[in-house]
Amino acid sequence: MMTLSLIGIGCGDPGQLTRAAIRAINAADLVLIPRKGTTKSDLAELRRTICADVLTSKNTRIAEFDLPVRDAEEADYRKGVDDWHDAVAATWSQTIASHLASEGRVALLIWGDPSLYDSSLRIARRLDPLPKIEVVPGITSIQALCAAHALPLNDIGEPFLVTTGRRLREGGWPQDTNTVVVMLDGGTAFQSLDPNGLHIWWGAYLGMPDQIIMSGALTEVGPRIVALRQEARERHGWIMDSYILKRRP
Amino acid sequence: MMTLSLIGIGCGDPGQLTRAAIRAINAADLVLIPRKGTTKSDLAELRRTICADVLTSKNTRIAEFDLPVRDAEEADYRKGVDDWHDAVAATWSQTIASHLASEGRVALLIWGDPSLYDSSLRIARRLDPLPKIEVVPGITSIQALCAAHALPLNDIGEPFLVTTGRRLREGGWPQDTNTVVVMLDGGTAFQSLDPNGLHIWWGAYLGMPDQIIMSGALTEVGPRIVALRQEARERHGWIMDSYILKRRP
Repeated sequence: MMTLSLIGIGCGDPGQLTRAAIRAINAADLVLIPRKGTTKSDLAELRRTICADVLTSKNTRIAEFDLPVRDAEEADYRKGVDDWHDAVAATWSQTIASHLASEGRVALLIWGDPSLYDSSLRIARRLDPLPKIEVVPGITSIQALCAAHALPLNDIGEPFLVTTGRRLREGGWPQDTNTVVVMLDGGTAFQSLDPNGLHIWWGAYLGMPDQIIMSGALTEVGPRIVALRQEARERHGWIMDSYILKRRP
Repeated sequence: MMTLSLIGIGCGDPGQLTRAAIRAINAADLVLIPRKGTTKSDLAELRRTICADVLTSKNTRIAEFDLPVRDAEEADYRKGVDDWHDAVAATWSQTIASHLASEGRVALLIWGDPSLYDSSLRIARRLDPLPKIEVVPGITSIQALCAAHALPLNDIGEPFLVTTGRRLREGGWPQDTNTVVVMLDGGTAFQSLDPNGLHIWWGAYLGMPDQIIMSGALTEVGPRIVALRQEARERHGWIMDSYILKRRP
């Protein structure tokens, strides 16, 4: 029987690694490290650094593999994702098979937490034969964002919605909540909202040495975040950011 | 200048401690440990165990203090919470003053993550003089719940709402989402919903040795969770549980 351990490693700061994550990495026979290409946002280097830093087991091998590229031409978004998950599962299977016989422990180091806006659990379920799947939680960029701003995410006894940039742009301010966390925003979807009465807590490269944060009334800091984001993306060649919006009722 | 470090320690499993949390505990001059009383849910023992386990610094002292009790008779809920936060802040100040002069590093070990349904950040802002506040994120019970079920929290590109048992009972199924996380549910608020088409992933004592989980169609497992929860609460003398509901659109 194969065990596949999906290990959350936090969002860039090696200090975010949990003791359980370190234990799970060392318990693995094989750690799979995906190569995504040559962009600066390539996280393979961080995964290599973490392995070099915490691996004390001599029985753990590391195998790198090239991650298939998603077909951006596919008009049907769901089908594109579906095909891509199949392709990634096939690559995992091949890489595992070339290093291990029919049993052993395989680990994947997952950015953030495997349960939050991540494909690994869905891909793992496509493996044939199906391995035993274990999840080790990791610190997410939402938590790093709140920590950087020393911000309580929820108001007392109140709910919050976690959503995507696309959803916010298409649906506007959601019902039922005065607190919205926005993830996976390729742009600045907050610009689609009426900024009056909204407050924003924004951050990019959270947990990394280049972390930048900004907060304030959206009317005032919104334009500054747009400019800062543009400037940072040009300087780094990539950007990963998220933000929290609160509406005063 | 005083620095107050609010350190997320996860939700019961010492393996959930991050390296940054361990570092922050050891960097403290003083660790404050609140005593809540003599119930089995008293978390002071866990905090003592964690300190005994990870403290290597000889310069760190530990100070226990009795946490004020919130006035449950206060009809105005907000005012009751407000008064209680003031009382806790006063107790922190007294305990700190009796151990440290005007500067140093004080640490509080926070269940879960200081940013999620926790009062510490709000209480810290009431301290006079105001300390420099640092937050170290920790694994939450939501993450432990997802990990235990190997469950992706969000559907692909879709939002989710985190709310309370009371909100769910009062407001029914929220708009804008097919995934709801329910926290702080003193009872079983899911019973107030039409169970048809709903799926539940439930867990209690998450991350602890007594962890129990159950999942399935709410029509089928809802009554079993109600019975299991009642039985577990009687056996342990207390219960802490949370759950995720998903609606198939």
